[in-house]
Amino acid sequence: MQIAIALFDRFTALDAVGPYEILSRIPGAETVFVAERTGTVRNDNGGLGLVAQRTFDEVPAPDLLIVPGGPGQHHQMDNEHLLGWLRRADGATTWTTSVCTGSLLLGAAGLLRGRRATSHWLALDTLREHGAAPTGERVVFDGKYVTAAGVSSGIDMGLALLGRIAGDRAARSVQLLTEYDPQPPYDAGSPDKAPADLVEEWRGRSRFILQ
Amino acid sequence: MQIAIALFDRFTALDAVGPYEILSRIPGAETVFVAERTGTVRNDNGGLGLVAQRTFDEVPAPDLLIVPGGPGQHHQMDNEHLLGWLRRADGATTWTTSVCTGSLLLGAAGLLRGRRATSHWLALDTLREHGAAPTGERVVFDGKYVTAAGVSSGIDMGLALLGRIAGDRAARSVQLLTEYDPQPPYDAGSPDKAPADLVEEWRGRSRFILQ
Repeated sequence: MQIAIALFDRFTALDAVGPYEILSRIPGAETVFVAERTGTVRNDNGGLGLVAQRTFDEVPAPDLLIVPGGPGQHHQMDNEHLLGWLRRADGATTWTTSVCTGSLLLGAAGLLRGRRATSHWLALDTLREHGAAPTGERVVFDGKYVTAAGVSSGIDMGLALLGRIAGDRAARSVQLLTEYDPQPPYDAGSPDKAPADLVEEWRGRSRFILQ
Repeated sequence: MQIAIALFDRFTALDAVGPYEILSRIPGAETVFVAERTGTVRNDNGGLGLVAQRTFDEVPAPDLLIVPGGPGQHHQMDNEHLLGWLRRADGATTWTTSVCTGSLLLGAAGLLRGRRATSHWLALDTLREHGAAPTGERVVFDGKYVTAAGVSSGIDMGLALLGRIAGDRAARSVQLLTEYDPQPPYDAGSPDKAPADLVEEWRGRSRFILQ
């Protein structure tokens, strides 16, 4: 099984590495980081560099596609190199997935029309512009399309998908080995749970976060 | 504030990227990935490359040190380049931290003697060999030393530490922006919760996981 993770300038690192850490443990999986050019791709704050091993053209038919989000997503929305590759790769995949605003790229590629999907909570309305029906769920399955909410939700998506692909026992094994028994010291991880003034503050600044 | 994340061959990616994603959002923080040599450092399965921007010598006095774990840790336990740097860096830090078996490296550097600490659940006994008192907690604070359990626990550590450094509001902001509202689809993330036969199976294979 070939797993392709798309990278682009100013992606969010955990969007990509969360599901990577879970899904790369599927027995026999080959995971490849893919970008327009091979070499280092910088994340949203520029402080982290992940290496893209292959170009889009070199990975034409992955079995599982993962598209992370991040502020750089905004600048890829009319990049036909990326969007065209997403469409072609999607023609081959068993699963097409995204984390955070990666779903807006799937949307821009025309892959989410009429589908239930999710995204970062600040981007749910934008998802609608691409013909998708946004939901407030953390991980959304609609046929072979699986979208996850903001940043850290890719870990939950990875486990849910691993269960579908390799079975519950394999998924529980990976959960145990990655000790994914979350104990957040605060309870502010969604707009429903965070203090209302904090939610309002970030809604007001969303343009600076998402671009 | 300078945050240094140590990299070494066959580290586990999420150990490093989990706390990175949280702590790099501290206003004014500069995060730097550090290794024996600059350039690409490969993770435990070789499929992911993170770029080390600086050598150990170039980062002599970080404010916050993060040491990830992973199977490669085992081969670093007598690497004086790394251990000596950990000791020197620790002389400057406000916080010295680890995720997963990174605590064994702090232990090998002599930094955890007489301290409460944690590690990957399969490595807790080994921690004792370095003079530390292992606990079953997910995140352990002992003075300026903060250790986290396996792989994904670095996210919880990052949030707890961010709260201490920048305050509760800043920590809740980052939790909201990274949408860290975990909803694991299984409940097998610790040896207490996973099916007993699975725990036994991995205990029997721990040599192959930790090295």
